[in-house]
Amino acid sequence: MEQGNTPTEKPGYPPAQATLHEVRTAENSAAHLLPKLQSMKESNPHLKLLDVGSGSGTISVSFAKLIPDGHVTGIDVNANILPRARAVAEMAGVKNIEFQEGSIYKLPFADETFDITFCHQVLIHIGTPWDALREMLRVTKRGGVIAAREGDYETECIWPELPGLIKFHKLMASAMSAGGGTPTTGRQLVSWALKIGVERSQITLSYSTQLYHTPSERKICCKLEYFILRFVVEIKALMAVFSLAQGLSSQLRGGSLREKALKFSLGSDNDLEEMAEAWEEWAKRDDASLAMLHGEILIQK
Amino acid sequence: MEQGNTPTEKPGYPPAQATLHEVRTAENSAAHLLPKLQSMKESNPHLKLLDVGSGSGTISVSFAKLIPDGHVTGIDVNANILPRARAVAEMAGVKNIEFQEGSIYKLPFADETFDITFCHQVLIHIGTPWDALREMLRVTKRGGVIAAREGDYETECIWPELPGLIKFHKLMASAMSAGGGTPTTGRQLVSWALKIGVERSQITLSYSTQLYHTPSERKICCKLEYFILRFVVEIKALMAVFSLAQGLSSQLRGGSLREKALKFSLGSDNDLEEMAEAWEEWAKRDDASLAMLHGEILIQK
Repeated sequence: MEQGNTPTEKPGYPPAQATLHEVRTAENSAAHLLPKLQSMKESNPHLKLLDVGSGSGTISVSFAKLIPDGHVTGIDVNANILPRARAVAEMAGVKNIEFQEGSIYKLPFADETFDITFCHQVLIHIGTPWDALREMLRVTKRGGVIAAREGDYETECIWPELPGLIKFHKLMASAMSAGGGTPTTGRQLVSWALKIGVERSQITLSYSTQLYHTPSERKICCKLEYFILRFVVEIKALMAVFSLAQGLSSQLRGGSLREKALKFSLGSDNDLEEMAEAWEEWAKRDDASLAMLHGEILIQK
Repeated sequence: MEQGNTPTEKPGYPPAQATLHEVRTAENSAAHLLPKLQSMKESNPHLKLLDVGSGSGTISVSFAKLIPDGHVTGIDVNANILPRARAVAEMAGVKNIEFQEGSIYKLPFADETFDITFCHQVLIHIGTPWDALREMLRVTKRGGVIAAREGDYETECIWPELPGLIKFHKLMASAMSAGGGTPTTGRQLVSWALKIGVERSQITLSYSTQLYHTPSERKICCKLEYFILRFVVEIKALMAVFSLAQGLSSQLRGGSLREKALKFSLGSDNDLEEMAEAWEEWAKRDDASLAMLHGEILIQK
């Protein structure tokens, strides 16, 4: 799960949001790391992997399955999510894993503890992501690897371009920035690694994309709830629309996002109503889709 | 190669631009079509494939290799490029291919001629892309497939975000629009197919990405020319910077793009100089990268 905006913040995650994030696995969220993980496993089956911002633990658990003779530690700044992560591991029958509370800015581990240190959609939400990368580097063994996958919210590619959706995108980007995050994180990963002294030759950069909205998904599940579920996965900034799917008493209309928006003077009541209606319209459209670029780096220590 | 902005326009392609496009293959530019092509080939090895806007023919030739018992026709609105395409086929030793002149708006073929009709980076440059899709549909057999892959220029993801590069991006998007093209083509493919009467259930939508700038590329080839070569591939709008790599007497500074920009009042001489310098600066940066989303559709007829 994502970290809060500061090392000390412990954001609460509504159950629905945690549920959405549980479709994440190592296969769909860390594909750029897996070939390296497999080759490292061949020479050392006892790999130690740290998943920073592990949230409800589905990525961590799938890592643990990939290294059955190794060990995975999931760490999250939000202690409230840890019981869920442990339950996810137990349901999967995975034993080589543990979850604990901690901040990405001050990882509670000695230098050079892990073979692989990973984070997913964490750096985009925090104020000084290079400090987080430095800390991930510290706890990684020499010869080990640090991997991150982060969205680039400015590349959000949405159709149809309803005015309410464009407003919504701008609101989300503003809210993300106002909260200390960086909407263009995907494209900045290399620059942050260089900033903390990593050599360019140690960094492998790639991009991947995710698309939400296939005809078959629409056919199988015609309820608005399902659409929203499918499309907001991975896009925390859009999480506010989720409660639209739960009887239209949305966060956008009455909840935490609205509070944040008004706090930052990012939208009027009318704007927010327009956005909510635009999402409803979008969900009905046969030509609707949503995609976004994700930046990915591997750092060889 | 891309079509011109109107069916009657026959744009000339500088040799360098043709060369750049020659890194395109079916594997890197039609990956979304290949599984379907392979399964169709199993039941009919004699597939007939049409590549619309075939340009210098590298994608067409790689299709021809994939269906050695089938036949590929490449068609381009620009007759000047046809000799090059024929030379590319000859160099590759490919015999089951032919190239001819023709417009995507009025394909010189009877109804239901081809099993597969394909285009790449064509619809983004033309005024009524739905008419082009309708024509592609017409010449495709029932049970056949129409495939398109088109960039979404608005998702261009570039780092560092030098002011000159941001200006350049806006200029390119404006020039593309002014020329009758659609910078957000990638996201609109489904809507255009629906517009001409295709049912949503016949359409498969996907997105892919391309990234230009790896450390190993930078290490092996430190010349600016090579950087530009790598990064502008696929992005016709950026072609103007190519001549930067040829002694700095660029199109941007003195050529056709500048003419177009001034014609549409899209940039002053100072602006253009700033953009040219920004590209030079970008090429030197160790953290530089450029990526873009590409929309892809398959239509089952």
